[in-house]
Amino acid sequence: MQTSSTRLALPFERIALCGLGLIGGSILKALRASGHGGTITVFDIDRPLAQRVCESGFADVAAQSPAHFFHEHDLVILCQPVGVVLEYLREHQRDIAQGCALGIDVASVKAPVLQALQNGIDSAALARFIPCHPIAGKATHGWVSADAELLREKLCILTPDAATPAAALASIQAFWQRLGARTSIMDATRHDAIYASLSHLPQMLSYAYLHSLAQQAQARQWLDYRGSGFTGFTRLGSSDPALWADIAVHNAAPLLAEIDRFSASLLDLRAALAAGDRERLAEHFSTARDLHAATQHAAGS
Amino acid sequence: MQTSSTRLALPFERIALCGLGLIGGSILKALRASGHGGTITVFDIDRPLAQRVCESGFADVAAQSPAHFFHEHDLVILCQPVGVVLEYLREHQRDIAQGCALGIDVASVKAPVLQALQNGIDSAALARFIPCHPIAGKATHGWVSADAELLREKLCILTPDAATPAAALASIQAFWQRLGARTSIMDATRHDAIYASLSHLPQMLSYAYLHSLAQQAQARQWLDYRGSGFTGFTRLGSSDPALWADIAVHNAAPLLAEIDRFSASLLDLRAALAAGDRERLAEHFSTARDLHAATQHAAGS
Repeated sequence: MQTSSTRLALPFERIALCGLGLIGGSILKALRASGHGGTITVFDIDRPLAQRVCESGFADVAAQSPAHFFHEHDLVILCQPVGVVLEYLREHQRDIAQGCALGIDVASVKAPVLQALQNGIDSAALARFIPCHPIAGKATHGWVSADAELLREKLCILTPDAATPAAALASIQAFWQRLGARTSIMDATRHDAIYASLSHLPQMLSYAYLHSLAQQAQARQWLDYRGSGFTGFTRLGSSDPALWADIAVHNAAPLLAEIDRFSASLLDLRAALAAGDRERLAEHFSTARDLHAATQHAAGS
Repeated sequence: MQTSSTRLALPFERIALCGLGLIGGSILKALRASGHGGTITVFDIDRPLAQRVCESGFADVAAQSPAHFFHEHDLVILCQPVGVVLEYLREHQRDIAQGCALGIDVASVKAPVLQALQNGIDSAALARFIPCHPIAGKATHGWVSADAELLREKLCILTPDAATPAAALASIQAFWQRLGARTSIMDATRHDAIYASLSHLPQMLSYAYLHSLAQQAQARQWLDYRGSGFTGFTRLGSSDPALWADIAVHNAAPLLAEIDRFSASLLDLRAALAAGDRERLAEHFSTARDLHAATQHAAGS
């Protein structure tokens, strides 16, 4: 555990942050709460929101555009959807390579971000940008739900290139730790496979379940009869459709594989049920429960 | 709201309860907490448990068998799995018909319970037994998790026969209300369709998801990386496999229809993802989110 505030001092004086949603907003609030004394510039496509955030004292400048961020700051944090991050990296790779800032993003998919850097014509950008994924969420979204404590004790995964300089990596790890998070370094492709399985698939199943329920004429009347199991199972159903469509298409191959593996399990269950085979059903359920029991011991967030 | 304790006095002096799991145990504790002054007899296939429950003061007598319960009590509460309840009803229909007790059960499936009574050779049993389903649950199970407050403000659904005497129905409603629950009367077949959709299908999908995860060699290592979304989505995975195999086979037809409806929705999602069709994916997710938003307004438990 870090105990000395000297050791925890942020190595970044001028910070720029794009995207004032739940994660971006929470990072901003945590930065302010941490006593960061430097300047903070924010950008959001909702310009009046960025203006209000400055007026509330959470940032110093609301920029008209993030185009020059890498030339004017020490750290640039991209908190937009993965598709927007990829577009920014493609357009601004020269700025990243020639600027003075380190860069990070917070998207739920990491291989395409790393690939955009690796495929760039200016390989210097690769040394200055570290793809990150803080494992933190909430049932509500947007700046209004942002919370300085959201990242506390949460895991943040970094998926750097093999050639990322150790000093840059250490600075970014220190940054996340300063906000209360734990950090872990992982291969980007492994990250995307793990989160296709543990996060993106449950999100798809929640949506598909609610979608199937919506096909029933009486569904809305039936909702009065739901229990607490339904509520927990469908919590993910409040997530932003556009954001998740973006995540899904950028992690399509691992996610399709997970959907197919799930479908095979559901088919096994269905066959046992159609046959009235209680033993086989109980066996299927026991395999599931054994894995669930393992989660009670694993660390997790 | 019931406010007078006189109005709430239980019309049952001698109560017998079979099955000291989460629901049976919670009913028993709620009965004691309500100040019920009569005698309570309990039966459980785990005889030492029933004995300990008596020694702890929650019941007066631990019976060796529930065979004569309907002759020796005013109310008999069957809190066993639905398969055990059906067997009891088939074996003891004459006792129910000729005894002095009203009877209820608490199983999650109601049409087979009502049918077992309707198909019985002694139709008098039908007038004395009211199938019930309290919509209450927990992530942990068994007597050790039983809680006198579990039923508080929860919905309990009664699925009587058309010919059930009004006085019997009123007594059973008063019983549940005395334990803090709200009551609702519903057709048994409608109940089973609604709960196949709102409860049994989510349970199956949680199991199938965890089952598919268990097919991955690295699943247990991956669990360290899970987030809060995973935890909420898989909470149902701790449920008792034998109990749920029993529920599933006794509600097979509605549940198979729900699985097929869900599979069609998942296939629609998969096709959009395979095509990289972000618009269509977002539309699918929006349909889901709109239904989820409706749950924020519906009553529910």
